[in-house]
Amino acid sequence: MSNSNHYDVTTWPIGNASEDVGEVINSIIADIKARQTVTDENDGGKPGAVIYLPPGDYHLRTQVVIDVSFLKIQGSGHGFTSSSIRFNVPEEEWPDLHELWPGGSRVIVDIPLSDDPPGKDESKGAAFYIERSGSPRISSVEFSNFCIDGLHFTPDGSGLPAENSYVNGKTGIYVASANDSFRVNAMGFVYLENALTIYKADALSLHDNFIAECGSCIELRGWGQASKITDNLMGAGFKGHSIYAQNHGGLLITANNIFPRGASSIHFDGVTRSSVSNNRLHSFYPGMVVLAENSSENLVATNHFLRDHEPWTPFLGVDNGRDDLYGLLSISGNNNSVIGNHFSEIVDAESIRPSGATPVIIHLAEGAGNFVSNNHVVAMDVRAASSDSCFSAQVDALLTTGASEGLAVTAVLVDAASARNTILDSGNDAQVIADRSVNAVRATPTIGFAAETAQTSQAAGIHR
Amino acid sequence: MSNSNHYDVTTWPIGNASEDVGEVINSIIADIKARQTVTDENDGGKPGAVIYLPPGDYHLRTQVVIDVSFLKIQGSGHGFTSSSIRFNVPEEEWPDLHELWPGGSRVIVDIPLSDDPPGKDESKGAAFYIERSGSPRISSVEFSNFCIDGLHFTPDGSGLPAENSYVNGKTGIYVASANDSFRVNAMGFVYLENALTIYKADALSLHDNFIAECGSCIELRGWGQASKITDNLMGAGFKGHSIYAQNHGGLLITANNIFPRGASSIHFDGVTRSSVSNNRLHSFYPGMVVLAENSSENLVATNHFLRDHEPWTPFLGVDNGRDDLYGLLSISGNNNSVIGNHFSEIVDAESIRPSGATPVIIHLAEGAGNFVSNNHVVAMDVRAASSDSCFSAQVDALLTTGASEGLAVTAVLVDAASARNTILDSGNDAQVIADRSVNAVRATPTIGFAAETAQTSQAAGIHR
Amino acid sequence: MSNSNHYDVTTWPIGNASEDVGEVINSIIADIKARQTVTDENDGGKPGAVIYLPPGDYHLRTQVVIDVSFLKIQGSGHGFTSSSIRFNVPEEEWPDLHELWPGGSRVIVDIPLSDDPPGKDESKGAAFYIERSGSPRISSVEFSNFCIDGLHFTPDGSGLPAENSYVNGKTGIYVASANDSFRVNAMGFVYLENALTIYKADALSLHDNFIAECGSCIELRGWGQASKITDNLMGAGFKGHSIYAQNHGGLLITANNIFPRGASSIHFDGVTRSSVSNNRLHSFYPGMVVLAENSSENLVATNHFLRDHEPWTPFLGVDNGRDDLYGLLSISGNNNSVIGNHFSEIVDAESIRPSGATPVIIHLAEGAGNFVSNNHVVAMDVRAASSDSCFSAQVDALLTTGASEGLAVTAVLVDAASARNTILDSGNDAQVIADRSVNAVRATPTIGFAAETAQTSQAAGIHR
Repeated sequence: MSNSNHYDVTTWPIGNASEDVGEVINSIIADIKARQTVTDENDGGKPGAVIYLPPGDYHLRTQVVIDVSFLKIQGSGHGFTSSSIRFNVPEEEWPDLHELWPGGSRVIVDIPLSDDPPGKDESKGAAFYIERSGSPRISSVEFSNFCIDGLHFTPDGSGLPAENSYVNGKTGIYVASANDSFRVNAMGFVYLENALTIYKADALSLHDNFIAECGSCIELRGWGQASKITDNLMGAGFKGHSIYAQNHGGLLITANNIFPRGASSIHFDGVTRSSVSNNRLHSFYPGMVVLAENSSENLVATNHFLRDHEPWTPFLGVDNGRDDLYGLLSISGNNNSVIGNHFSEIVDAESIRPSGATPVIIHLAEGAGNFVSNNHVVAMDVRAASSDSCFSAQVDALLTTGASEGLAVTAVLVDAASARNTILDSGNDAQVIADRSVNAVRATPTIGFAAETAQTSQAAGIHR
Repeated sequence: MSNSNHYDVTTWPIGNASEDVGEVINSIIADIKARQTVTDENDGGKPGAVIYLPPGDYHLRTQVVIDVSFLKIQGSGHGFTSSSIRFNVPEEEWPDLHELWPGGSRVIVDIPLSDDPPGKDESKGAAFYIERSGSPRISSVEFSNFCIDGLHFTPDGSGLPAENSYVNGKTGIYVASANDSFRVNAMGFVYLENALTIYKADALSLHDNFIAECGSCIELRGWGQASKITDNLMGAGFKGHSIYAQNHGGLLITANNIFPRGASSIHFDGVTRSSVSNNRLHSFYPGMVVLAENSSENLVATNHFLRDHEPWTPFLGVDNGRDDLYGLLSISGNNNSVIGNHFSEIVDAESIRPSGATPVIIHLAEGAGNFVSNNHVVAMDVRAASSDSCFSAQVDALLTTGASEGLAVTAVLVDAASARNTILDSGNDAQVIADRSVNAVRATPTIGFAAETAQTSQAAGIHR
Repeated sequence: MSNSNHYDVTTWPIGNASEDVGEVINSIIADIKARQTVTDENDGGKPGAVIYLPPGDYHLRTQVVIDVSFLKIQGSGHGFTSSSIRFNVPEEEWPDLHELWPGGSRVIVDIPLSDDPPGKDESKGAAFYIERSGSPRISSVEFSNFCIDGLHFTPDGSGLPAENSYVNGKTGIYVASANDSFRVNAMGFVYLENALTIYKADALSLHDNFIAECGSCIELRGWGQASKITDNLMGAGFKGHSIYAQNHGGLLITANNIFPRGASSIHFDGVTRSSVSNNRLHSFYPGMVVLAENSSENLVATNHFLRDHEPWTPFLGVDNGRDDLYGLLSISGNNNSVIGNHFSEIVDAESIRPSGATPVIIHLAEGAGNFVSNNHVVAMDVRAASSDSCFSAQVDALLTTGASEGLAVTAVLVDAASARNTILDSGNDAQVIADRSVNAVRATPTIGFAAETAQTSQAAGIHR
């Protein structure tokens, strides 16, 4: 039994942190519960504890189960390195590599995989599982500055190499029950099918993490409110979402740098009164940001959207199945605001699907009352190029702007199922496809605009 | 006397940290001052120290007085849990609760209350009091990742239950004199009348904190410059402000998720050349953001404003006293920019005050030269509902969008005392109430706009 | 040899951390490399380590050379205090000062200066030098919460006092080779010619640092991608940049409070598809933000720009050499978006250069397809005042808005070398100087606009 609330997994007498840090942490939690039994109405009694993981490799063979508030698990190093690049280096070159694995304070998820189909019950494959019934909701669990590494992906039956499948049934942190004021900061997540899956979050903070080469990065499920996802570097696999949220209100997603792949960078189902602002978003497919299932009254503002092509050889031909009419931003919902975003669509015209189609940037698919204003769309036709080097391929693609040619796009497409929208200065007259008898449209002025009458330049006409 | 600059309150030989951590920390500060006496012009001498509070309950019966630079006080857990919910649970259910109090590294403020009326000299009730005269200004004091808990509120004479009054004369951190480069990060504050009161701040950083169930969260008083309030989760009581600033220049308030209640989410007095951008703001009353006392040249951009009704039974009928003509955003000052904000006003039409009034969203009360552009106002009439469960009431309210009906509002109201403003695309012609002979107005186009002449759609006329 | 991956420089047996922390850290790195030799294809072997610097003064006389991944160097205090103010206090007053130097966990850079001219090979003067050839790129090196202090500046030959020159050949952290997922958080940098110089960064995070009184704060050189510079307080010297980036793609610069001086607050060379959004920027000279060398498809949104005069006596007459026709924001590149920014230009009309010129705010110098929309320009003629007190001079200047008079400015200037731009609502007709036959312009409406025809208010005409 400890005589303090500061634990170190490497010095705890029960279990062996290198062999099974899960057993160690569970026995620490049992110690905390045994020591902190008093509920003192005067003023206290259950302050929780901090569990420290110094830098090192820690196998986790037993799932950690957390049901105490105020538990902080802290390391000294988020430890990311690219396993994806390493696994796509020819095996004969591995002995020449400086290191083969992520590092820092590194939890190696070695939980036996379930026989369930992947995704069936992902809670079983979670390194950290958090659940508590009764009242109050479990509060103020904090994770800080360590690495959770899923080690390998497994074959998905598609013919892709196993290590490129983004599938392995492993989850980093899984929160099953309603929770309050949790924090996840400065963590690293790599090679997990799901990095963070959190149900019923209130006032959650996911801040300044590094979440990459995971099937999905952040999934907020069930319902929740008043949370923030801020200042993270992340990028999911082609099957998953970098950020997914369901039935959340008052969610703030800002200052994130979200890189490929990600079937979507951000996907909302039934999310209301939330903000997606000021993020840098980069994807290789349409459907970068999807507001679905009546997601309403959200603000999508001053984000930078870049969609270009997969440049890295191992993933050529892989995508999320959406064609270029889907939109980089697609909205099914009411009264959303889309203001001041920059969109760069940099694609090879010959790769557009359906062949010969005009790609869509902002797509109002269903709903009413959306306000789309002051968005700038840049579109260019660039011959796709690829490389065996992930980093230089991406940088080359990012920096290629000179030799490209303009590409015709539909800046805003309003379907018949969406009406009473207002679309201002987000595309010239030909780039906004909307029934102007049921939507208010002011096209972006074109050259010579000022010399024409406003009547002409903002010409009437129903396009669909 | 220590032989290192790293102190732990639980191992320090003077005093008892559980009984009075204030006495312990003051004796540590005395030790630092006794040990660090040399002022060596060659290169050094007074590096300060870090004082560590492991998770645990620490009564603070003696005020900590800080007058040394480079002091860091650090814990391992912000420790928030909702005391407000607990105190509003029937007392007979308390034995069934998992825990009754906040936790983590928890400082319990047990300073004897002054006989002064609440608010009279709140510095007396401060857990941490910082003041130094002479030069240079005290610098680089840091607070990180512990909890300051005021324990109880006290009766305010209004008939509200004591624990709902937001009054107790206690302050978390009080900085009385000019200061430079302070940091407050990852802290928790709960049940304090004032969480943070800071005079004369330069280059202050208040980042990633959890400040809730406090009368006021952050008050920057006197004057100050070049500070930031970023990435915090917070919400004040109905009498106070979540953020208050006075005579500050160059203040950056961004990426905060500010929830109710708060008489104002943000209140500026005489603040200039500052930014309120990219925040998520939620309130139950008008006056969410107030720029008062000639607050000028500020940028209010890409924020999400939601005003709806108090849904939690214990606070029904409580408000900040402002009626619906006040505006969600009210401005008395010059040359401010209000750009790209989303406003959702979700109220029960029958509860509007004065009865039958048209609620105001953006209110230019005094001043000149303000620029209001590209703001989207959504307003709906929703029957108010309430619940005994704080969390589900709020989530239900947040997610309710379907069954509501449109509500007529004044998107922008310009009083006669404000002139030479520019109002663009922030409300249709009828929603902008301004003397068009002294203000420039371009109404948001309405459906059919493109088919009309611009002259007609942007019709002339003086509304007030 | 250590038996753990947690090192403390004050207890390491080799060297003396007070005398030469560089020797100590290098011997720790050697120990890490000697202990972590196994490359185990099964799952691990080289987790790296954390090196802790408690608060204290540490001379660094030997450059630290880092070539291992997953190394974290951590202190307990960013330790900034203004050396600039101190050095400009009369020497006879120094004995009365509470402290003379920065503090916290303070690394004092005492590397012998090279005989090279300043800037010739700044890597030689770096306290921390990071380089590794081969594969993979060095990953996840982290710096956290300590101070790097260059102590003194040296004469630059201009006649300025040595301590005001911003020159000393010292660099804080210098990364020479391609790197991945580095983090620099909560650090303090002071009196270095270059605080951070980083080549070839991928997914770098520079977050929540205090970087002031350095020649240059952050320089990202060579090329790089998908990085973020967020939530920092910083301000460079008049010769350098607060942020400089070269050939970067997908860089996110947001939520920073960047104060003077800085020849530029932000300077881009060949940077594409990046974001500068939501920052507070303050400078004493034109050229606050410069997008040069074909910087394209960037988003500059919802920033607050303030340009006013140097108010502090020791620096009167010092500037960056640019005249008032340069623009506060100057762009040479294509398809950039400039949306929703606030600009305050607060200058003494008599100090404008060339004398009698109309100052330029946004300058499109070269390129095509830029989108400039919804920017608000405030300009005032204020008699310049100065003071011997740095802090109160700045605050006074910041808060002075009342007695000023309007100043005529060119809100947007489009040179002949830039065409096919769209300029909307960013200045009235007379304030936008652009060839309307090759640029689309919609002037900000002026009072009485609604009563005129749109044709008149958006008058035709070619201004240049």
